[in-house]
Amino acid sequence: MEDVLARIRRFRDERDWMQFHDPKNLAVSIVIEAAELLEQFQWKNKEQVALHVIEHRERISEEVADVAIYLLELADNLGIDLRKAIHAKLDKNAQKYPVEKAKGVATKYTDF
Amino acid sequence: MEDVLARIRRFRDERDWMQFHDPKNLAVSIVIEAAELLEQFQWKNKEQVALHVIEHRERISEEVADVAIYLLELADNLGIDLRKAIHAKLDKNAQKYPVEKAKGVATKYTDF
Amino acid sequence: MEDVLARIRRFRDERDWMQFHDPKNLAVSIVIEAAELLEQFQWKNKEQVALHVIEHRERISEEVADVAIYLLELADNLGIDLRKAIHAKLDKNAQKYPVEKAKGVATKYTDF
Amino acid sequence: MEDVLARIRRFRDERDWMQFHDPKNLAVSIVIEAAELLEQFQWKNKEQVALHVIEHRERISEEVADVAIYLLELADNLGIDLRKAIHAKLDKNAQKYPVEKAKGVATKYTDF
Repeated sequence: MEDVLARIRRFRDERDWMQFHDPKNLAVSIVIEAAELLEQFQWKNKEQVALHVIEHRERISEEVADVAIYLLELADNLGIDLRKAIHAKLDKNAQKYPVEKAKGVATKYTDF
Repeated sequence: MEDVLARIRRFRDERDWMQFHDPKNLAVSIVIEAAELLEQFQWKNKEQVALHVIEHRERISEEVADVAIYLLELADNLGIDLRKAIHAKLDKNAQKYPVEKAKGVATKYTDF
Repeated sequence: MEDVLARIRRFRDERDWMQFHDPKNLAVSIVIEAAELLEQFQWKNKEQVALHVIEHRERISEEVADVAIYLLELADNLGIDLRKAIHAKLDKNAQKYPVEKAKGVATKYTDF
Repeated sequence: MEDVLARIRRFRDERDWMQFHDPKNLAVSIVIEAAELLEQFQWKNKEQVALHVIEHRERISEEVADVAIYLLELADNLGIDLRKAIHAKLDKNAQKYPVEKAKGVATKYTDF
């Protein structure tokens, strides 16, 4: 992802946007983009979602990218190594949701 | 990110959670985790955010990871190459926000 | 809703919180609380949602109230008459989604 | 708010949309609309927010109404008395954030 990150930084700096990209504003933008991604599936049932994913693949791809761009920039600005952070979080999740208890349980997060 | 992705897949499949991880449910989870990340900065001004980032680095790191985990899984499930998707979106953004017009302009998204 | 609004104002002012309650911070809080409400239904299918609604009525009620409290305060601070604003928006929606075209159509928002 | 609620119900039923308006889909829509409201303030500082609020009052009013419409409908569908729910939540908040401890403290939610 190094090439992607270099480009995100350059894109921002060419436009002198670092002044707006403090952690809070980036987190705000991540939520906004995540909601736009979710909007792709608003009101749809499983079959309609499956169809939409086939017919609007590029649009969904763009919405996923929008979330990713701000998330990568936030991690970068905070000096967070995203790969390491994900591994550490998965370690923690593995403790919280042991296979034998969590297997096939949908209500995992609210009931555990 | 291939090792990370392999682990996310294994984590899900060991728990038989693929049945819940349709695109809509994953998008719902991305928004929920993005809001938890934003909650770290709720009510805080720039100085308080800067301090919080130093004092609660690990917690913020975990929230960033939570968003990333679901986002990577969604892209993976939909067969989206995230690196490619980001480059394509940055190409598009470069057209939408040309340097000469966008430079130093905070209100970029709502006014363009 | 006048008694509710009076209490929301008093609650805030007794704690000297108006300094934090600018429109952006309130909108941030509305999103965070809305995501907590959504979390009640995360990963659940229709049957599980229906059951959860019966078993966790009070908790859901609290999450709904949290969104409402910040939304009412934001409208109040901006001098927006919420009743009027809702009627005006429903007028507009009626134009955008005429009965004959919108009837029974799930994909209303993305396809119209 | 009774007239507003009656109109929201009629609007939905004329379009035969109740089939889509289960609690999870409504909560998804509340988050999406809340993020659109937040988008009005994206990247802006306090001064820019204050100016935007004056210049785009009607647009903001519509975004507030969008959140309110789905929130009122969700409460109605679940048989939640919103006025009562808000009073109950404010009772609870008053216990959680006693005046003497919470006064003027911005970091209330994450540190308490």
